Amino acid sequence: MASTEPQADSVDVVIVGGGIIGLVLTVGLLRVGVKVKVYEQAQGFREIGAGIAFTANAIRCMNLIDPAIPVALRSSGSVATSNGGDEDPNDYLRWIDGYDRQRDDPSLQQLFFKLNAGYRGFEGCRRDQFLEALVKVIPPGVIELKKRLETVHDNGSENKLLLTFQDGTTAEADAVIGCDGVKSTLRRIMFGDDHPASRPRYSHCVAYRTLIPMDKAVSALGAYKATNQHNHVGPNANILHYPVANNTMINAVAFIRDPNEWTDEKTVAEGTRDDVKAAVRGWSQPVLNLVDCFPDTLSKWGIFDLWEFPVPSYNVGRLSLAGDAAHASSPHHGAGACMGIADALCLTTLMEQVVVEAQKSPGDKGRALIAALDTYSAVRQTRSQWVVNSSRRVCDLHQQQEWADATKLIKAQTCFEEVKDRSLKIWHFDYERMVRDSLQGYKQRRAPINGATKDKNLY
Amino acid sequence: MASTEPQADSVDVVIVGGGIIGLVLTVGLLRVGVKVKVYEQAQGFREIGAGIAFTANAIRCMNLIDPAIPVALRSSGSVATSNGGDEDPNDYLRWIDGYDRQRDDPSLQQLFFKLNAGYRGFEGCRRDQFLEALVKVIPPGVIELKKRLETVHDNGSENKLLLTFQDGTTAEADAVIGCDGVKSTLRRIMFGDDHPASRPRYSHCVAYRTLIPMDKAVSALGAYKATNQHNHVGPNANILHYPVANNTMINAVAFIRDPNEWTDEKTVAEGTRDDVKAAVRGWSQPVLNLVDCFPDTLSKWGIFDLWEFPVPSYNVGRLSLAGDAAHASSPHHGAGACMGIADALCLTTLMEQVVVEAQKSPGDKGRALIAALDTYSAVRQTRSQWVVNSSRRVCDLHQQQEWADATKLIKAQTCFEEVKDRSLKIWHFDYERMVRDSLQGYKQRRAPINGATKDKNLY
Repeated sequence: MASTEPQADSVDVVIVGGGIIGLVLTVGLLRVGVKVKVYEQAQGFREIGAGIAFTANAIRCMNLIDPAIPVALRSSGSVATSNGGDEDPNDYLRWIDGYDRQRDDPSLQQLFFKLNAGYRGFEGCRRDQFLEALVKVIPPGVIELKKRLETVHDNGSENKLLLTFQDGTTAEADAVIGCDGVKSTLRRIMFGDDHPASRPRYSHCVAYRTLIPMDKAVSALGAYKATNQHNHVGPNANILHYPVANNTMINAVAFIRDPNEWTDEKTVAEGTRDDVKAAVRGWSQPVLNLVDCFPDTLSKWGIFDLWEFPVPSYNVGRLSLAGDAAHASSPHHGAGACMGIADALCLTTLMEQVVVEAQKSPGDKGRALIAALDTYSAVRQTRSQWVVNSSRRVCDLHQQQEWADATKLIKAQTCFEEVKDRSLKIWHFDYERMVRDSLQGYKQRRAPINGATKDKNLY
Repeated sequence: MASTEPQADSVDVVIVGGGIIGLVLTVGLLRVGVKVKVYEQAQGFREIGAGIAFTANAIRCMNLIDPAIPVALRSSGSVATSNGGDEDPNDYLRWIDGYDRQRDDPSLQQLFFKLNAGYRGFEGCRRDQFLEALVKVIPPGVIELKKRLETVHDNGSENKLLLTFQDGTTAEADAVIGCDGVKSTLRRIMFGDDHPASRPRYSHCVAYRTLIPMDKAVSALGAYKATNQHNHVGPNANILHYPVANNTMINAVAFIRDPNEWTDEKTVAEGTRDDVKAAVRGWSQPVLNLVDCFPDTLSKWGIFDLWEFPVPSYNVGRLSLAGDAAHASSPHHGAGACMGIADALCLTTLMEQVVVEAQKSPGDKGRALIAALDTYSAVRQTRSQWVVNSSRRVCDLHQQQEWADATKLIKAQTCFEEVKDRSLKIWHFDYERMVRDSLQGYKQRRAPINGATKDKNLY
């Protein structure tokens, strides 16, 4: 029994949610000596079979969390999502006129903008395969399935937090981190059922997703467009596709503006090809050809986020949120998960400090954890909430009415300078500075300079 | 007579408009050996007595155009617009809650965001005084007043352009550059009366401008706010002020959203203090105090710009536009004139190349000028048009409805990450790279690589 007895100087962290961010964080915290338990409500792992892409920047963050993570990613079959060809190894994002029908040759489309994302700028994989590879990195006994969190009781930073689950069992922890996604239970516990951030809002955009065999895609789009990422923009909709599965298929997503409310209980419903056809009626011929390749019925995702009502902070004492639980974003930058990876790097950095301090003065562990999580919230909130806003904004730009008005086309194209700036801000994140800022913020919170505590922001 | 005879190897440029950008460009072109004539329609110089501020970046551009220009600026009494005090020499921009009334002490306001603009980040002067100082740098005979341009005839790049004025006189030039402001005549000549860019559109924002003696401002706002730049934001309006005239007065501007059309013939009309009071009814006490210091009647500017209908390009052959004539912007970044200064640096750089080539092969001068002006348009258009868009965008953020809704205040404050990025993009412009890009673009246009001329953007 002695070996399972809690040790006073250990730092016990519960992670709620066994998705990609939860498991990446688990690997990081284990590496720096935290005692981790992961509680996942599902019977298996959370991620369903869709693809996900990570920026090169996020993959470098993974490497700092633990080099085993990018190894897991690559072992799960990740590939660069754009294929520049032999003469240029870089990935590009391309925005192309999805609306206008060229009079001379309806098969042609105008390329509006092309942006260099660098060598392997985006790497894509299947979510379930990456998750499987991550699970293999984590020792047995860390993850428990079928555990649905109900409450957390905080009896002061001198005592353990007490978690209760819907099955009546309980657990203790020094800190709890919710990686439980857009509909986070821990977020609701932290801020209360009535807080507007406890209920993510509908972004009034739906995503129809499907895979199309490459030969059909080549017939619809031509070989160049089919084998390279393209984003076809037009009024009230945009269609994005890129090759997957070793160039044997393309992943195609139709984002369509929806003026109505989302009424389904679940955020994924069944949609039809005819829905998509109606949204792109009269668009350019390649887009119509592509939509003809969609199956009769396909999955239709209602996109919910925390844009309208952000959380007030990413921690309340020793309870904290990471990934979508903290800053659920619409997917228009392809960067939501990358923000969660940077959260995990920040938390791993800070928890390493807490582990060292807890060994020196175990009685101070609670205050050290609060300083670490306060620092995490201060370091991460502005940037990750900016991505939530920015993703909404680029959706508005992709789907602006001006694409359908010849007199406004010059104006419409001026949007790409902004799209470029926003993309580069994501891709060129200075994560080393974030690590330095985290260490410095923690140090300052642990040894505050004496002085006025008056609110200098009120004068 | 021989001395006034046109020389085959001289480069004769006419600048339309004797405002700040026209005269800054004149000084630059004269320095690199261009023969310049400036035609100004007014009886005196164009700028009326309002203030103008330049970023430190724009002042460094002035120095590259001709070191006499920043000397003229400083000799005209420019001062840093924000006063950090003895302990911090940097200028800051500050955004403050103009709307919410603090329950405990109505004289207090919450500082939302503070942004370091660097040492002498903005320098302000009176427009008329800067213009006077610039005129002294220009030799006599270059500027002609009371000349209103009517038409420009282009008889092919082998021949001079022929300009006719409303007084029946004519002039010849190798190239014409319109620095004739938001209502540019040359723009209308280049694109035609029917082109939408020939008519700038109302931004649905008005600016009420006034000067207030410092003692009254201190009584209204307190000493700290009165002597430092502050931007009071709230729903549908924002109020900006900063010290001028050696801290003896503050310049105050109330920007107010206007859902109606602008019906006055002129863009400056008479407004009343009551108009402003109505827009800030119920706002925080310091804002109400400040508006009480406004005079009964004051000037009311309708803000017009080229946001909705940008020009297709900044040149058509040897006719070209710079400053507001090319990219009239609303003033919410305080950066409209700074874009014109960068235009002038780009044009000076390119015209220096044309002067050198014209001396070697005078017969090729027309094609060299077209290459230079095509390059200028390609180098400058994206960025300066972005400022037009960005200025509109930050106005929307400054005046968002969310400031008046306590449940949306967390969201509203997330806007400052975007405001910061946009400001830094303006303040940290890499003008040395612009100069390199200009030289390279000109070289490529003068010696094009043989190859396919097919439009690679259509596929």
